[in-house]
Amino acid sequence: MEFPSKLIEDAVNEISKLPGIGKKTALRLVLHLVKESEHKTAALTDALTRMRQQIRFCKTCYNISDTEECGICQSHRRDKSVLCVVEETNDVMAIENTAQYNGVYHVLGGVISPMNGVGPSDLKIDALIDRMVRAQGTIKEIVLALSPTMEGDTTAFYLHKRLREFPVKVTSIARGVPVGGELEYTDEITLGRSILGRTLFS
Amino acid sequence: MEFPSKLIEDAVNEISKLPGIGKKTALRLVLHLVKESEHKTAALTDALTRMRQQIRFCKTCYNISDTEECGICQSHRRDKSVLCVVEETNDVMAIENTAQYNGVYHVLGGVISPMNGVGPSDLKIDALIDRMVRAQGTIKEIVLALSPTMEGDTTAFYLHKRLREFPVKVTSIARGVPVGGELEYTDEITLGRSILGRTLFS
Repeated sequence: MEFPSKLIEDAVNEISKLPGIGKKTALRLVLHLVKESEHKTAALTDALTRMRQQIRFCKTCYNISDTEECGICQSHRRDKSVLCVVEETNDVMAIENTAQYNGVYHVLGGVISPMNGVGPSDLKIDALIDRMVRAQGTIKEIVLALSPTMEGDTTAFYLHKRLREFPVKVTSIARGVPVGGELEYTDEITLGRSILGRTLFS
Repeated sequence: MEFPSKLIEDAVNEISKLPGIGKKTALRLVLHLVKESEHKTAALTDALTRMRQQIRFCKTCYNISDTEECGICQSHRRDKSVLCVVEETNDVMAIENTAQYNGVYHVLGGVISPMNGVGPSDLKIDALIDRMVRAQGTIKEIVLALSPTMEGDTTAFYLHKRLREFPVKVTSIARGVPVGGELEYTDEITLGRSILGRTLFS
């Protein structure tokens, strides 16, 4: 792509480094900013700069938080004996949206992925073990809510092994046919797991 | 959507003001920036700020340019007697990519759109007329390359009327069946125009 201006080219290059945004989309966004008044661009860059510089993580669960400890960890209404292990902040948001979970969280910051050079020490796994030690047996259940991928499964197995020394029940969110999904269009592995994991009809 | 942090919420709100980016995509981008090092966000915001503050427009054709007059207007290889009128910079880029045009451009900055409150005075139409006067008859052809929409057609009619006082040939880019397109899937209006605008088979 030939750009009419180095400034445009630099901006397009930076924007297209973001995931899922190609050069054409980036150019469309840049030309939109050019048409809008200068303070709109300033508002965008200010929000991004402030966010990146001031962002903090909860000292307990490592979720993104504006305070030292996040609202969920601080809440007296949440059941501190159940701890849900997730990869990222957006997983916490997704589970919170269901309104079906009343425990607390632990955000790993990713999954074990040798291909991408991510090992256990790059994740908040030691912090989870510390948290278990500090809890002195008050955490009764760990719910693993990791992606149903090779990396997610590897991470789940690793966590299961590390958690064996504690008197805690380790569970995993159910894998099965999605609600509203049609049986014939469900892939074999999911359908197979849904049969193995069948539950009592009640 | 419930956000774990006001900083994240502000950043998501600003990003989702960009065209074609919803809250979910914006959140994904923000969380990506959180995972990456701080200087990546700084590189992005710097490029956007510099672009918006320093961007200039060619004094002759109003295309985006790093110099007072853009490379196309300055070039001695371009045919200054043919002038292509387009809406935006990306139209110039698209036409340049075809390598089929050797004239110069005039960027209007949009099209007449009463619905969006854009009148002739909001566009570089008076500047085009001035340019015609200054050219003293050396511009022999004006090629209208506007979008085939109601607004584009309105703008084309308006320009045609304003240009009547000059001894200049006003043409429009061809409307017809796209190359590689199938006849049966072409909409009626396009197919109709392609019949009315049929050319000698050579």
